[in-house]
Amino acid sequence: MIDNPVKHVTTNVLKVSAKSSPNAVAGALAAVLRERETAELQAVGAGAINQAVKAVAIARSYLKPSQLDLTCVPSFIEVEINGNERTGLSLGIARRSV
Amino acid sequence: MIDNPVKHVTTNVLKVSAKSSPNAVAGALAAVLRERETAELQAVGAGAINQAVKAVAIARSYLKPSQLDLTCVPSFIEVEINGNERTGLSLGIARRSV
Repeated sequence: MIDNPVKHVTTNVLKVSAKSSPNAVAGALAAVLRERETAELQAVGAGAINQAVKAVAIARSYLKPSQLDLTCVPSFIEVEINGNERTGLSLGIARRSV
Repeated sequence: MIDNPVKHVTTNVLKVSAKSSPNAVAGALAAVLRERETAELQAVGAGAINQAVKAVAIARSYLKPSQLDLTCVPSFIEVEINGNERTGLSLGIARRSV
């Protein structure tokens, strides 16, 4: 089986902005976690982080019918936005069975 | 040993506001997790949720010298603020060994 590492990286990391719909991000996150053990959300700024955490809470309800749940581990990341280095938060998400 | 369940409940739940210092909350959270398996952060509003998630990320670095880490699980909660029902987020925190 030929595995594409680039595809893995791009589809596992979901970038969340203040304008992201928590329901839409939750749907994407749940879809990733039905296929894979882990995912990652990245957000910069209070509005984006708020949407990201809401999305994680909503994703739990989406995963419940599949007897799945998740845990998350936040950490700081440095991201470049328009040439400026900014500190954001990464939420590392791990799938678990209920 | 006489155990006080009321004290348990009140000291396990840390309420975070938009004005909370993430470092101070992280210190309190790390102190709880050195003694107990679980803790909970509650936050209402984007500013408060942002501070809470930052505090969790910082608490991880405070726990590291004790060979401890944590995972968190967000869920929605209804809280009453000045007689009004508002939706907030609870971050359920579980301690784990590194």
